[in-house]
Amino acid sequence: ATKKLLVLPGDGIGPEIMREVARVVTWMERARGVVFDISEDLVGGASLAVHGVPIRDEVIAAAKAADAVLFGSVGDPRWASAGFDRRPEIAILKLRQELELFANLRPAKVFDALVDASTLKPEIVAGLDIMIVRETVGGIYFGEPRGIETLPDGSRRGINTEIYTTAEIERVARVAFDLARQRGNRVCSVEKCNVMESGLLWKEVVTDLHARDYPDVELSHMLADNCAMQLVRNPRQFDVIVTGNLFGDLLSDLASMLTGSLGMLPSATLGAVDASGRRPALYEPIHGSAPDIAGKGIANPLAQILSFSMLLRYSFGMEAEAVLIETAVANVLASGLRTADIMSPGTAQVGTAVMGEAVVRELDKL
Amino acid sequence: ATKKLLVLPGDGIGPEIMREVARVVTWMERARGVVFDISEDLVGGASLAVHGVPIRDEVIAAAKAADAVLFGSVGDPRWASAGFDRRPEIAILKLRQELELFANLRPAKVFDALVDASTLKPEIVAGLDIMIVRETVGGIYFGEPRGIETLPDGSRRGINTEIYTTAEIERVARVAFDLARQRGNRVCSVEKCNVMESGLLWKEVVTDLHARDYPDVELSHMLADNCAMQLVRNPRQFDVIVTGNLFGDLLSDLASMLTGSLGMLPSATLGAVDASGRRPALYEPIHGSAPDIAGKGIANPLAQILSFSMLLRYSFGMEAEAVLIETAVANVLASGLRTADIMSPGTAQVGTAVMGEAVVRELDKL
Ligand SMILES: CC(C)[C@H](C(=O)O)[C@@H](O)C(=O)O
Ligand SMILES: CC(C)[C@H](C(=O)O)[C@@H](O)C(=O)O
Repeated sequence: ATKKLLVLPGDGIGPEIMREVARVVTWMERARGVVFDISEDLVGGASLAVHGVPIRDEVIAAAKAADAVLFGSVGDPRWASAGFDRRPEIAILKLRQELELFANLRPAKVFDALVDASTLKPEIVAGLDIMIVRETVGGIYFGEPRGIETLPDGSRRGINTEIYTTAEIERVARVAFDLARQRGNRVCSVEKCNVMESGLLWKEVVTDLHARDYPDVELSHMLADNCAMQLVRNPRQFDVIVTGNLFGDLLSDLASMLTGSLGMLPSATLGAVDASGRRPALYEPIHGSAPDIAGKGIANPLAQILSFSMLLRYSFGMEAEAVLIETAVANVLASGLRTADIMSPGTAQVGTAVMGEAVVRELDKL
Repeated sequence: ATKKLLVLPGDGIGPEIMREVARVVTWMERARGVVFDISEDLVGGASLAVHGVPIRDEVIAAAKAADAVLFGSVGDPRWASAGFDRRPEIAILKLRQELELFANLRPAKVFDALVDASTLKPEIVAGLDIMIVRETVGGIYFGEPRGIETLPDGSRRGINTEIYTTAEIERVARVAFDLARQRGNRVCSVEKCNVMESGLLWKEVVTDLHARDYPDVELSHMLADNCAMQLVRNPRQFDVIVTGNLFGDLLSDLASMLTGSLGMLPSATLGAVDASGRRPALYEPIHGSAPDIAGKGIANPLAQILSFSMLLRYSFGMEAEAVLIETAVANVLASGLRTADIMSPGTAQVGTAVMGEAVVRELDKL
């Protein structure tokens, strides 16, 4: 069956690292006989520049029709003061919401060859392998009422609303428990139930679901501030962390920075399996659009390539092919090639294209 | 003039570390002729056990009448399932709100003698000295509507509201700018203006205030998720960080954990100067009640002692005495004494009381 992909490179380094994924796609078609039907479109600042909006309705429709979306990243300083309705970021927020991509899977994994890239001591992070499951269509990101209002005395007030329903909490917690069963079998649920009622409900719903359907998985609870500390103190204590949209935003970025190699980390954002067995899904690197190095040919394409490997695994069940890509990436690192962001003494610095080519060459050997 | 202090040891290790502060207070009275009028009361789980509430109205009134409050910490697992209205944490939340203690000053400082205590590499954290100014009476901690409601279909929904007004943002930003002028003269304002309108207003108000009253201070803006990353990547890039209640909760805990020695870090929470020149203020260590080691005589009393030194500085302008205490603490560390939490090879482990006595002995020598 043809596999329908929508590719959205977006802003900054997005287009140039996506070109390296194209090589891997071509390799998969040639060497493994996979047939992809790929279309590409603009999002973020790139779309604003051409179409005046961060994402067009046609692109949302194409994303819904696709089997999977491969996303680069959005964010462009040139649109920083264009107004709240013309933020490049709307593209990713709208995709998450319209496709109901509620579970963002963000692995924070330290590659053996890169353990020294971390600002943390090697004995703290060696072998680190955490999966953060972040809720992505609810919470304060989307709750109403929201906005800025002017008060009678001329002063202003900004409002946002955090809302979580039983159903929203349950479905993302299920994803976390299911994942844990395939990993270390431990879930840590994170909220601020000592201050926020939405966190209190979160904790109760996760506890109930656990007792009902996942008694075999080890469940713990942690306050979000403590989790931020524990990630620094002893990150390897965690297996799967499940948390809301806003806490997940901070904690997953924090966790990925522990690895010291953001340029290596992919992510998947999944929706619900529908009646016909299809599951909307979007794959993107954890790093941003990095406008400061865009166009220079020095960006690290590996997180984008590994996002494609996640896509093969989660959207098409192509575990063998996903592992092939991951092995090729590990071999390239072991051979000593590095992009600027992961350079260390005794390794060889290469640009974006050479790194992409090297992955394909390793694939050829496997 | 007599200096009126309210001492609230609270739960866990609170009482035992507060006893060590008492030694330092006595020293100040004896050696420097300062006259303190001290009263003490129960808060948190300790108050729940005796009075059935986490804090009594009389205690709030006494706190308002005092020149400064010296707080231990609240939190007790025995009250974990006592219900949202009987959380020990209500004690500190109510004190902040009733005294309008809107600016929480949380230094994250690496002591030279303890640079190896951090899980981060010494070259990343040596000399680290950040001040986080966290808003503490607004935002999602206190906004209405809030609560858990049951929907017609029997499912539930948890709601909290983030609200920030121009005035709330301005007054805490002023504290940050004023502090920056006495330090590195740089302020980084942190929000999620790419997702939340309350963050957008935050950024605008800080920007306007800066242009109007603090053009000499260097101002930058950063998204909260990026700030979490940057604190791990290169924490020394920051001088003063100013942010809202919830982001401040996570980011200040994260920043303090970078030092690896939570047991060393004090904090101050300040209100507004009133017509008669008084300023409500509360001082507390950053670490929590640590119920697991409570009553064992092994807790580190230094953060509580340094909170008293902050109290002398900010509430009474006693800079010389504040520095005396800080010097005494530094000398004790230099002499090789350590409580269990900051032990390292080649130093001598001591308990809570011996550490407190050592500080007083050093004060005697100064
Ligand atoms: C781009 C932005 C809106 C987004 C978010 O805050 O969710 C990003 O930080 C992320 O984590 O994917
Ligand atoms: C005890 C708790 C309510 C409090 C908070 O969340 O503000 C604590 O974590 C803090 O940072 O002082």
